[in-house]
Amino acid sequence: MKKFYIAKSRRLRSTPFTSRIENHGVTAYTTYNHMLLPASFGNLEKEYFHLKEHVQVWDVAAERQLQITGKDASKLVQLMTCRNLSKSKVGRCYYAPIIDEKAGMLNDPVALKLDDDKWWLSLADSDIGLYAKGIASGLGLQVEITEPDVNILAVQGPKSFKLMEKVLGKKITELKFFGFDYYLFKGNKFFIARSGWSKQGGYEIYVENREAGQRLYDELFEAGKEFQVKPGCPNLIERIESALLSAGNDFDSGDNPYECGFDKYIDIKSDINYLGKEALTRIFKEGINRKLMGVLIDADKIEITEEIPLYNNNNTVGDLRSATYSPNLKKVVGIAMIKKDFWDKKTPIELKIGDQKSKGTLCDLPIV
Amino acid sequence: MKKFYIAKSRRLRSTPFTSRIENHGVTAYTTYNHMLLPASFGNLEKEYFHLKEHVQVWDVAAERQLQITGKDASKLVQLMTCRNLSKSKVGRCYYAPIIDEKAGMLNDPVALKLDDDKWWLSLADSDIGLYAKGIASGLGLQVEITEPDVNILAVQGPKSFKLMEKVLGKKITELKFFGFDYYLFKGNKFFIARSGWSKQGGYEIYVENREAGQRLYDELFEAGKEFQVKPGCPNLIERIESALLSAGNDFDSGDNPYECGFDKYIDIKSDINYLGKEALTRIFKEGINRKLMGVLIDADKIEITEEIPLYNNNNTVGDLRSATYSPNLKKVVGIAMIKKDFWDKKTPIELKIGDQKSKGTLCDLPIV
Repeated sequence: MKKFYIAKSRRLRSTPFTSRIENHGVTAYTTYNHMLLPASFGNLEKEYFHLKEHVQVWDVAAERQLQITGKDASKLVQLMTCRNLSKSKVGRCYYAPIIDEKAGMLNDPVALKLDDDKWWLSLADSDIGLYAKGIASGLGLQVEITEPDVNILAVQGPKSFKLMEKVLGKKITELKFFGFDYYLFKGNKFFIARSGWSKQGGYEIYVENREAGQRLYDELFEAGKEFQVKPGCPNLIERIESALLSAGNDFDSGDNPYECGFDKYIDIKSDINYLGKEALTRIFKEGINRKLMGVLIDADKIEITEEIPLYNNNNTVGDLRSATYSPNLKKVVGIAMIKKDFWDKKTPIELKIGDQKSKGTLCDLPIV
Repeated sequence: MKKFYIAKSRRLRSTPFTSRIENHGVTAYTTYNHMLLPASFGNLEKEYFHLKEHVQVWDVAAERQLQITGKDASKLVQLMTCRNLSKSKVGRCYYAPIIDEKAGMLNDPVALKLDDDKWWLSLADSDIGLYAKGIASGLGLQVEITEPDVNILAVQGPKSFKLMEKVLGKKITELKFFGFDYYLFKGNKFFIARSGWSKQGGYEIYVENREAGQRLYDELFEAGKEFQVKPGCPNLIERIESALLSAGNDFDSGDNPYECGFDKYIDIKSDINYLGKEALTRIFKEGINRKLMGVLIDADKIEITEEIPLYNNNNTVGDLRSATYSPNLKKVVGIAMIKKDFWDKKTPIELKIGDQKSKGTLCDLPIV
C-alpha cells in the first residue's frame, strides 16, 4: 500500500505529549476530535505482543472531554443517550451510546459522573459538543457546555498495575474497574480512572495541568524501565480481536445501537426521556435485520479505507468495516455488519482484497 | 521538520476521486469533516505558481454538504447564522458564519439556496449537522437533516474558464460569481457553482453521481492538456496571501465573527432570529479588543502546529495561527489574532520559530 504524509496544522491540534511521542518514535498519526492521535510506532505487530505482555503509555488526549455542568446537566446527558443514567453514581464511568432522533449512532463515549450536576463525556470522534449545544439552545436548558483542557494519558497492559503502584502508591490498586478518583503525584492532583481502550487492563489519567502531566509522563518512563514500558497507542489488532468498537469505523449514524450489540445499554421500558426513544422502541418491536459480527479471513494482509462487501456466491452477506492481520491467529480479523440470514455462522464468505479473492468465515465478537 | 504518515481507515473517508489523485501523485493529506483532503502533490511552491497561471482540478469532496429540507428549513438555517438570509434567492450562494449562543464561531460554510425549503451548507471542518439536529430536536422543527453523497471537484485558476467552456459549453461562462446552475456533460446533469477556495477564479462541481463524476474528472484532464491542467488542492500559500480564512486554523469557537472581520455578514439590527444574537449585540456595543490581521516575517520557513505568541519586547502582541513561506514575497506570510493596541501596524513584532528568533511586521488582510 502506498503511504502518505499527514499535513500538520493548528486545526489538527497537537497534544501536551506530542513532542515526547515524536522523540519516542511515533511514525503515523490518525486524527480524532480535530486532534492528532498516534497510530503506530513503526511495527504494529511488535506493539501488539508488547501490549499483551508488558505496559505501554499512550497519548490519547484526542479522547476529548465534553464537560456539561449546571442545573440541567444530568437531564441533557440523559437526553443524548439511550442508557438509563437515573441511578448513576458520582465517581463512576458509564459506557453511554449517543443517538439521534432516528436512533442512529452518533458517538459512544464513556460518561463520567463527577458530581450530581457535572459530567464529562470522554468522546469518540464526532462533535457531540455541537449536538449538546443545539439541544440546550432549543430547549432553553440551564447548562454550561465546554471542552476543558483535559488530556488523557493511558497506561495499558498487564504490568500497568505494578507501574502505577510504583509511581502513585498502593491506593491506586484499590480502584475498581470503571471507577475513578483523585491521586497525588509530586504535589499535583490527578484524576485517574481504571479504564482504557484495550482489554489488557490499565488506567486513564485525565491530565488537567499540562506541565504536571508532562512530568508524570517522564516519570512513567523512568519508573517503568523495570517493567519494559514502551510508548504505544490503541492497537488495531488488539482492539479488533477484543471487539472494542470504533465509532466511524465499525458504526456510524446509519446504524442503530441494537445492530451494534449495545442491547444492555438501551432502556426503552422505564420513563426516562431521550431523543430517539420512539425510534428505538419501534426498532425493538420490529427486530433488526443485521448486526456487527467478527470475521476471520484466510489472508496475510489487508488495508481498509472503505466498506468491503462480503459475498456468498452472488449473495451479499454484509460489509467489512475494520480489519487487520492478526499474528496471533495467523489470519485477517475483522468486524463486519452482517445480514440476518447469515448469523448462524455456517456460510463461508468471499471478498476481494485489492485484486485478490479471499475466503473466510463469520464468528462472534469478541473474536479472541 | 519530521514527517509522519497518515494511518488510513474507514473513519477517515476516501472520496470518489481518491484513487485518481493517488495515481496523480498526491503526497500528503489532511482530514476535514472525517474525510481525506489532499494537502500537497510534492511541491507547494510549484503548485502555487501553477495555480496562479494555469488551471488545477481539486478533490475537495471533504467540503461536505449538510442538506436541510422541509417546512422549517429556512428557519433552521437562519437560526444558525448571523447573516440575514431573509432576502436570499434560489440559485445563489451565501457565505454564512455559524455561531453558538455566546457568538463563538462554529463554522463558515457557503450556504446554497436550492429551493425555498431546501438548503445545502458547504461546510468547513466541524459537525454542524449535529448542531442542526440538536436545535431541530429541541425546538421540534419540521426538517430533514442529511449528508447527501455530494462530492465537490473544484476547477481553479485563471484558465479554469476556458477549460470549463471546452468541456461544458459556452453557457458555463455566463454563470456569475456565487451563482449556481445545472449543466449537462455526456447526458449527466451537474450542479456547478462559480466559487472555490482560491482567489484565482473558477468553479466547484457538486458531483451527485459518482461514476459520472469520475468520467468528468478524467475528461477535465484530457481536455485540459492544452491549458497545462494539473491536479491540485487548496494551496496554503495562496490562501494565506488571499486571506481565505480556515476554520479551526485562523479561528475557533473562542473567537467571534467581529474579531474575524466578518462585519458585513452580521445583522444585529433587523428582527431576524438566530442563536447568539444577544451576545453579538453586546459585543458590538462594547467593541472588540482583538482582530485577525496579516503578518510578514523575515524568515524562509515555518510550520505551524499550534498558536505561536507574537511579542514586542515583553508585551504580547497576539498569536500567529497560520503561516507559510511565500516565494512571491520572499517572506513568511501569516494570519494572526492581534490585540487592539497594535492595530496601527507601526509596532515591529518578534517570535520564535523553533529555536530561532525572527522579526516581522503586521499588515492588512488580504496580504496580497
